[in-house]
Amino acid sequence: MRAVVFEEYQTFPSLKDVERPTPGPGEVLLKVAGSGACHSDVAIYNDFTADFGPPQMAPSFILGHENSGWVEELGQGVTGISKGDAYLVYGPIGCQQCRACSRGQDTYCENAASMRYLGSGLGRDGGMAEYLAVPARNLVALGDADPIAAAPLSDAGLTPYHAIKKAMPVLTGGGKTALVIGLGGLGQLAVQMLTALTGAKVIATDMKDSAMRRAEEAGAVTVAGGDDQAAQICELTEGRGVDAVFDFVGVAPTIKVAMSVVALQGKVTVLGIAGGKYEWDFYSTPYEAQLTNTYWGTIEELHEVVDLYKAGLISPLVTRYSLHDALKAYRALQAGELDGRAVVVPHGS
Amino acid sequence: MRAVVFEEYQTFPSLKDVERPTPGPGEVLLKVAGSGACHSDVAIYNDFTADFGPPQMAPSFILGHENSGWVEELGQGVTGISKGDAYLVYGPIGCQQCRACSRGQDTYCENAASMRYLGSGLGRDGGMAEYLAVPARNLVALGDADPIAAAPLSDAGLTPYHAIKKAMPVLTGGGKTALVIGLGGLGQLAVQMLTALTGAKVIATDMKDSAMRRAEEAGAVTVAGGDDQAAQICELTEGRGVDAVFDFVGVAPTIKVAMSVVALQGKVTVLGIAGGKYEWDFYSTPYEAQLTNTYWGTIEELHEVVDLYKAGLISPLVTRYSLHDALKAYRALQAGELDGRAVVVPHGS
Amino acid sequence: MRAVVFEEYQTFPSLKDVERPTPGPGEVLLKVAGSGACHSDVAIYNDFTADFGPPQMAPSFILGHENSGWVEELGQGVTGISKGDAYLVYGPIGCQQCRACSRGQDTYCENAASMRYLGSGLGRDGGMAEYLAVPARNLVALGDADPIAAAPLSDAGLTPYHAIKKAMPVLTGGGKTALVIGLGGLGQLAVQMLTALTGAKVIATDMKDSAMRRAEEAGAVTVAGGDDQAAQICELTEGRGVDAVFDFVGVAPTIKVAMSVVALQGKVTVLGIAGGKYEWDFYSTPYEAQLTNTYWGTIEELHEVVDLYKAGLISPLVTRYSLHDALKAYRALQAGELDGRAVVVPHGS
Amino acid sequence: MRAVVFEEYQTFPSLKDVERPTPGPGEVLLKVAGSGACHSDVAIYNDFTADFGPPQMAPSFILGHENSGWVEELGQGVTGISKGDAYLVYGPIGCQQCRACSRGQDTYCENAASMRYLGSGLGRDGGMAEYLAVPARNLVALGDADPIAAAPLSDAGLTPYHAIKKAMPVLTGGGKTALVIGLGGLGQLAVQMLTALTGAKVIATDMKDSAMRRAEEAGAVTVAGGDDQAAQICELTEGRGVDAVFDFVGVAPTIKVAMSVVALQGKVTVLGIAGGKYEWDFYSTPYEAQLTNTYWGTIEELHEVVDLYKAGLISPLVTRYSLHDALKAYRALQAGELDGRAVVVPHGS
Repeated sequence: MRAVVFEEYQTFPSLKDVERPTPGPGEVLLKVAGSGACHSDVAIYNDFTADFGPPQMAPSFILGHENSGWVEELGQGVTGISKGDAYLVYGPIGCQQCRACSRGQDTYCENAASMRYLGSGLGRDGGMAEYLAVPARNLVALGDADPIAAAPLSDAGLTPYHAIKKAMPVLTGGGKTALVIGLGGLGQLAVQMLTALTGAKVIATDMKDSAMRRAEEAGAVTVAGGDDQAAQICELTEGRGVDAVFDFVGVAPTIKVAMSVVALQGKVTVLGIAGGKYEWDFYSTPYEAQLTNTYWGTIEELHEVVDLYKAGLISPLVTRYSLHDALKAYRALQAGELDGRAVVVPHGS
Repeated sequence: MRAVVFEEYQTFPSLKDVERPTPGPGEVLLKVAGSGACHSDVAIYNDFTADFGPPQMAPSFILGHENSGWVEELGQGVTGISKGDAYLVYGPIGCQQCRACSRGQDTYCENAASMRYLGSGLGRDGGMAEYLAVPARNLVALGDADPIAAAPLSDAGLTPYHAIKKAMPVLTGGGKTALVIGLGGLGQLAVQMLTALTGAKVIATDMKDSAMRRAEEAGAVTVAGGDDQAAQICELTEGRGVDAVFDFVGVAPTIKVAMSVVALQGKVTVLGIAGGKYEWDFYSTPYEAQLTNTYWGTIEELHEVVDLYKAGLISPLVTRYSLHDALKAYRALQAGELDGRAVVVPHGS
Repeated sequence: MRAVVFEEYQTFPSLKDVERPTPGPGEVLLKVAGSGACHSDVAIYNDFTADFGPPQMAPSFILGHENSGWVEELGQGVTGISKGDAYLVYGPIGCQQCRACSRGQDTYCENAASMRYLGSGLGRDGGMAEYLAVPARNLVALGDADPIAAAPLSDAGLTPYHAIKKAMPVLTGGGKTALVIGLGGLGQLAVQMLTALTGAKVIATDMKDSAMRRAEEAGAVTVAGGDDQAAQICELTEGRGVDAVFDFVGVAPTIKVAMSVVALQGKVTVLGIAGGKYEWDFYSTPYEAQLTNTYWGTIEELHEVVDLYKAGLISPLVTRYSLHDALKAYRALQAGELDGRAVVVPHGS
Repeated sequence: MRAVVFEEYQTFPSLKDVERPTPGPGEVLLKVAGSGACHSDVAIYNDFTADFGPPQMAPSFILGHENSGWVEELGQGVTGISKGDAYLVYGPIGCQQCRACSRGQDTYCENAASMRYLGSGLGRDGGMAEYLAVPARNLVALGDADPIAAAPLSDAGLTPYHAIKKAMPVLTGGGKTALVIGLGGLGQLAVQMLTALTGAKVIATDMKDSAMRRAEEAGAVTVAGGDDQAAQICELTEGRGVDAVFDFVGVAPTIKVAMSVVALQGKVTVLGIAGGKYEWDFYSTPYEAQLTNTYWGTIEELHEVVDLYKAGLISPLVTRYSLHDALKAYRALQAGELDGRAVVVPHGS
């Protein structure tokens, strides 16, 4: 079958013929419906080296960690799953025996250091291919919902959802505010989820005008960058500060804005992996305001993301590419030319 | 001044002249903007006797525990409050020294048994009058929002809000469902709040068609009574059961419906004070489904209810009566002829 | 190998020769260290019939759902587990694909109705035998801790632990009280856990004097049965009521005591499966007191129970029986002659 | 009466004669039992100037924000309080009308900026005197418990208690660990509280040997400073990291240790006001580890601290000084010569 393969460190991936996988015990073979191209894929093939980046992600493997598909074949010991049914795939794959994996949070697997891979398309073959083998336990049923537009939900949906759910204690009730910094694929879904799941006033900011417009259509109030950005945001909160800030960029200036607008007893979650630094001290932090980061989410949360998707409360913006054009998708992603998520569709829409 | 006075047990109240109150230390005198007529007032003057009902509510006193007004005069020691400003009144008044009062939850005052009253219009003079004296601490600022339509929020708004907030752990996230039983003043506001504050599918039921229509306009899916009511409700939850049920009626049949549709790990909150009985047992209860009751709310929550009101997310349906017609309001209430809450407006709209 | 087999409904089990199991894909074969005899086993072979009880527990199968053992053999696809290491077994086995199983709470598997069994020794062969095959995912490492005394923890430890953890929001902090009703295997561990994990005053009650003494040694204050039992308990709480009640009996009189002593905003959890009924109503329930039930626990919680065991904070009282004497253990259990849990030790201590 | 007065910025306080206070409306006059000397008093008279420090704390006023006493006289409108009874005083005093004050958390008063003081001994006359006037609402009954040793609980007890309570979600259950950095008055009480209220392994560190010994007596495992401090701490957690770190020092090196040992999903709370800086970034923070600060606590929590004190679960180490020797107490405090808290006892023990 054809597949997008990450073959060598710091080298653009290739589209090539590989053998169709066979599902192992407890696994399922999916005919891929959609596979999303993610910025972290670019980090994998551009930035990582033998000395930098997780050793579990050494080449070569098929890319694609945001996957959906139809069941094609069941591995040994798998029951309760019907051929032809559509599923979304939970990407991370941990040891299955530690307490984190036992609660479906493979992202925090206690034995990750000794694993040979971290997930589908993350050290192990992913979904940028005609077929994909994954543990049956990682499947989330899609029912009648469109599996292609769903593909990005497994990362671009699950990541903000997890962060929002962890922030719910400060977002619940009347008079709350949320701020979304960075309105790419994850940020836009964050705006949709906050609007759907809370009564908070959702404030959003980005440097791209078109992204600001989309966020407004989804119910956000937008604030442009600039010297008075923090002041404008605070005014929108009637001076109380923002209860929950989600920073999908993560450079030093965005974290600084986040910490300068957060409310007393509020929460700042940094999701963007740009690695910006912030100088924290007791006196410049409103009391009990938390600063934290987070990474992806749990299988159960992915079920809940799918529930939102089925209910029409969230809808990722996707641009479809054939598998033949998959490398174009990565080039467009790198060039910042994409509006919404690129989803590779190996078998047609 | 004119006031609606509960003068004798099991006797309809009188409209009569009484002396205008003087605010004590730490109190404020309000020129009453609106005072809501509540079903529990009817219980006070119809059902209670020297032997039945709280001794703190013995006659005589002015009725009205859902009050708003403009500051007219400050008692000794009160600062930080400006004459003429509009406030909503938190009705319950506890000892101010126990741990419940310290957290602004006077409803659960540990010394209620030794108090001479339970709140404004509840043993102590209430707001069905031209003026009302209340502790400054019980005020919640309304700013520019209409104080008349706001009056019912202090009970008909705060009561469902408190119950919803306590149920948030089971209502947060995608794929959740809520059921509101009984669509009077409190139930309608519950529907509005659930729609505003959660992503849950809101199911609502009542015996009155017009109430069902209003709930639908507020975003609920309605289910009529009848033999297959529970089955229909469960179907709307895709067989998973309802995560949070709010029963504003509280008769045996409604509690039974509530417990028969609640989900595993769900929550049933009975708010209706009809006193219906339910035979609980281990085997007919889904695991970890909680059965509980609740009563009114906290001062802080009333601030949050006002936030929702100012943001336009909730709007109580009210029918305005002059103070002159206040007794008519109670007659209409008893006759079940009211659509929405009757608010007595002593000084005109 | 020898095994205790439940062969026919309403028939005492047999000790007989059966074939040694082979671990399937994703499974592990354990050499059994200990297998606890539980009251629910008696229900399985005494009470259940083709028409009463879960169809997944139809005979014939090997009993024993509280198991520990040493790894003997790995099934296909199992990695990260070393032969000879000691593990405790999480008993329930669900579909592995629903959201409950995904969070390691197989007890609430959404597809239980279509499963062929509910767990080890619960429709599928259990641990009352020389060897036992279980999913690798159900193992919790014991390290150097004694695996024989550990066996009962997988049910008699996990069940109270789960209930206590769910009740933590009402048990956290100074001035709290807990009540344990029923001081058998689960109740004694509940007392030990409450003492270890909270600052609550632990009150305990049982009809057996020796059980009361053991609870006192573990730090509880005991109250005997009788007419003034509820009054005595309330006095121990200084009139505030009990914050968290755990009823391990579950007959009508114990639930009644529980509900009559629970505090405002407290919690009553019924764990005993006697099926007693309780007539709930709004007025006789302290505000926001919750009535609920619960069943077993999660894999992650079993890790935490093992942490308590390793730290010496809990220690189940066990009486060891050889496999040859396993039926004697059940006879002693039925006769109420056991002090602590009977653990069958197929390979010697 | 005699009192310790802060008369001028950057000037050691004076012991002088002042007029005995009169309780205002809603206030109570206490005959002071004990008043604790706190490091923050030193900051008040040594560090603050007209330009640095809260304007609400401008001189002159009587020091002492950790106070207890017996009721001497009731102000207007105060009921339910008996003369002669012993009370502990909640120190902060806010506007009483904002949502923070309504929940008894005057520390976070929304109108603090417009208040003329922040609390007893904090801009308003405190308890280093024979008598003290405080709002009745700020009293917490001590019953028969020794009011002198209790005095420091109102700050040195409440501050760690509040932080621990906020960290409970990460501290609840088996296998948890806590780290206390800095074993002065607050840190020692933190160790006692963690031991009483959780099952966590409590690790403690300080530069003073005697402080380390006291912490060990209270149940902590101690780790000395030095290059391998973080490594030693992690080893005590079996490599999992510390679930909850409480830093009562707050200099850059202690915050660095805190952040280097915190577990994935753990929490670091900085309580020490030394103002140390920490350079936060996404990659060097374990996922979902929170960094936060906190300040004092709520009235309700002070009730719970008193519950712990009455139950004998915490006991502050105090050195008693007569009012005549009060200035000696401050000199000893500044010189670091105190073991435990200095409590000024105006009327003898």
